Parts: sequence; structure tokens; C-alpha cells
Amino acid sequence: MSDVGRGGRGQRASGQRGGDRGRARVVGGLHPVRELLRSEQPVTELLLSRSGGAETAEIEQLAAARRVPVVADRNRDELDAVSGNLVHQGVVALAPALPSVTVDHLIARAAAADEPALLVALDHVTDPQNLGSIARTADAVGAHGLILPERRAAGVTPAAEKAAAGAFAHLPVATVANLNRTLALLGERGVWSLGLDGNADDLLADHPLAGEPCVLVVGAEGAGLARLTRERCDALVRLPMRGHVGSLNASVAAGVALYELLRARG
Amino acid sequence: MSDVGRGGRGQRASGQRGGDRGRARVVGGLHPVRELLRSEQPVTELLLSRSGGAETAEIEQLAAARRVPVVADRNRDELDAVSGNLVHQGVVALAPALPSVTVDHLIARAAAADEPALLVALDHVTDPQNLGSIARTADAVGAHGLILPERRAAGVTPAAEKAAAGAFAHLPVATVANLNRTLALLGERGVWSLGLDGNADDLLADHPLAGEPCVLVVGAEGAGLARLTRERCDALVRLPMRGHVGSLNASVAAGVALYELLRARG
Repeated sequence: MSDVGRGGRGQRASGQRGGDRGRARVVGGLHPVRELLRSEQPVTELLLSRSGGAETAEIEQLAAARRVPVVADRNRDELDAVSGNLVHQGVVALAPALPSVTVDHLIARAAAADEPALLVALDHVTDPQNLGSIARTADAVGAHGLILPERRAAGVTPAAEKAAAGAFAHLPVATVANLNRTLALLGERGVWSLGLDGNADDLLADHPLAGEPCVLVVGAEGAGLARLTRERCDALVRLPMRGHVGSLNASVAAGVALYELLRARG
Repeated sequence: MSDVGRGGRGQRASGQRGGDRGRARVVGGLHPVRELLRSEQPVTELLLSRSGGAETAEIEQLAAARRVPVVADRNRDELDAVSGNLVHQGVVALAPALPSVTVDHLIARAAAADEPALLVALDHVTDPQNLGSIARTADAVGAHGLILPERRAAGVTPAAEKAAAGAFAHLPVATVANLNRTLALLGERGVWSLGLDGNADDLLADHPLAGEPCVLVVGAEGAGLARLTRERCDALVRLPMRGHVGSLNASVAAGVALYELLRARG
């Protein structure tokens, strides 16, 4: 399994990894930072532009309880620089890079909860807002994890963390070298791949696999699923479209599909 | 009814109106401009950074068929300036301000289609991306129109048009002075108000009003519905939440809710 999931890699020294994923994690904004501090994920340091206010009281209490060092009264420009000009609301947490887990870990979470696996895989979604928003919805429906390709895709950047509103504090992420091999491995483990494709014949809601252990595969806005990914999926499914535009925003489409999968499992 | 909807106002001289809604309409991007040219809405002028390419061929044909003046080979910086630094893909259309229709016009559209009315009202949603994305989903489910408050809310700006991917070319918009009076008027017309509220007791999917003529009322990200709006709604409904974060992105929540309403009407 270790050739598919990348368990533990995120905990290595950042110099060993390319791209954003190897860097320290920067989480900005009241909601994302609160969720991070509530989780069991490590936090290195908390930076505040102002301490002692009502807005940050809960965050300061959580940091104190976890013995996270707090650096208060930082200049907002400094926080802007650290967070890449995020809307951070004067609150930024620094943390070790988000660890990547194996897909078997995700399957084990479903088994432990005695639920049919519900996973989400993103096929080269490049917009961090979409990535974050999809993670937020995946958390909302109780999905067991998110699968991201290592390359040519949005990583869990500060912007993605902000859009996720704290979901990455709870939803495990498997970063994989080759999405198609991962889907094949999931198939061997009894998890069906359902690719979301506007040109599919079948509606997701009616599909017999919707209630089974499955991974929803979501493509990039505009381009959709890559050809090889489409071919690898066990089924291609679509949402009803009654209007003129004929497509949805990627994070809305994923959200509607995830709620249909939630409904299909009762 | 004319005190509630603002029929025809958008066609007046722009000097008579405050805010963005009175200004000429700027639509940028291949998808939004194509939908605009396909619609029956007026178009003043089409600006292209490059003409004669494969990407803009369909748009140039549509413009020619409609006798819309085309100004080709414009500097991209010029298009950036005209469109407010939108990702315009080298294609910008100028048009008269989007006309506002009355809510009775929206109800009449439902009646003409022999469908129970399905409307969406935004209660001070300030993010143009959310406005645009919600309009796109409203079009996708075949909603009969969108209701926007005149003040303290995102208008149909170029950014909203871009996020809507062309939905405003087809989905009529009623801009209203007072949302609560509009909801009252809709009630008199037999259209129920369903407010989306994370703290509601009832799930939308199970609600007996979901299949009836109704208007989905969506609040601002974070703040949710205003107190007076909550009190005015015939029912408050929520989506299932199984995760840690406890809320969705506003446009995802609206999207999931609209698909539940579509399902409820068979």
C-alpha cells in the first residue's frame, strides 16, 4: 500500500519535498485556526494582531490549554506577509506540514465507524478555493477522507485552508503519486470509483453504486475528468441539468454530489 | 406589485440609479459572453483582444448574426481596465444594465411552464462570487428567477457575471427595495418562503413545503439570515451536517438546497 498512499511523508524535513506540501502549514482566520486548535494536529505557534479581545478569547484559551506559544500584538502587515495576503482576521497559526495518510488509512476509518467508505478524489483541481470548499463539504457529509494527486493540482495552501473553514483539521488527506493506480487499488479494496461527468448517461441519485463504498472523483473546472481517469472509473454519473448554462461550479457540483451520496446511504 | 418588484428600472438612464446596478453591464469571459449573445438580452458592443481564432469563432458568429458591433485586436490591458481586472479571456461584452423584473413576472414564468414556482432570494449576500455561483445553480435546476435586495448586497457586477458563467443571460432578476415585504407579497401569491438556517429544527429534504411553490431564502456567509427575515419565513430548514466544521460555503449550501427542492418536485 505504501506505493500508493504517502503515509508520513509530510512529516519529513521540508527540504525533501517539492511544492507547497512540504512547507510548514499556515492557517489563517478565526474559524480555521479554532478548528485546528480543537483538533489533535500539532501547532507550532499562534500569531495574533491583537490579544485579549472577545473575538480571539476562545482561540487564546485553546492555545493555552495546548501549551501552544502565542505571539501577540503582531503588526497586521506581518501576518499578511506570513499568510500570503489571506483574509486572516488577525489570527494566523503555524504548524508542521499537513501529514499525508495512506488510502488504506481512509478505508480503515470507514470500517472503524462501521460505515460504507465515502471518499473524495480530486483529479487535478487547480483552484485552491475549490479544493478548500470541497474539503469543507466532504467534512460536512462525514466523508472519511480526501485524495489529492501530488502534481498538477492545488495543494493544501493557506488559501485552501481558509476556504475549508477548518475542515483540514479533521478530514485526513492522502496525497498520491498516481490517481489512476490509487483508484485501481481502491477497487481491489471494494471501493467503487464514481466519476462526476456532465456528459454521463446515468444520474448519480439513481445509480446502484451510490449507496456502496465509493470514491467520488471530481475533475477540474472546465476541463473535467482526464480521459484516463474517466476510463478508470467504475461508473460515470451526472447531476440533473435543467437550465441553459449546462454546468455547475466545481465545488457546488461536488457538494451536490456528496449530499446525494449521503442520502443514498440513508 | 410595482412597489415590490422594480420592473423596467434598469432600462432608465443610469444617472437615475445609485450603485452598480445602474451602470452599463460588463460581461467578460468566453462562457458568459457566449451565453449573453445566445440570449435575447441587448448587447451594445463586443471587445476582443484577438479576432479570428478558434476560441472566439462561435462568439464572432453570434455577434455577426445579431449585428453587434465588434471591436477587435484591443490591448488586453484595456480589457482589464474595462472589466475591473476580471479573468476575461480576451473577450468582453458591453450591454445596457441588466433590467430588473417584478416578482409577479417570476411567478408568471412558473405558471407559463406549468411548474410550481421555484425562486431564490438572497438576504444580503455580499460576495459577488457567491451571488454568481448561486445564480448559476439556480439556472441549472430550472429556477424561475432570483430576488436581490437593492442595498447592502452584492449586485450583478462583472465578477458576479463571471462566476455565473452566463446564467444572468437567462435567469431573470427582481431587485427589491425590501426583502421582507417581497416575501409577504409572495406569500399572498401562494409562494412559501423557506429560509436556509443551520440552526433550524427541520431538514429541508423532509419538509412538506419543499415540493410546493416556494422561494429559498439564503443568508450571508457567516452571519446567516437577518433576524427579521428569519421571522418572516414560513419555515426554517437546514441541511444534514455530520462533520466537525458545521457549516458550508454559502454557494454550496444554496446549491445543495436547490437540488433538494428540484428532487422534491419530482
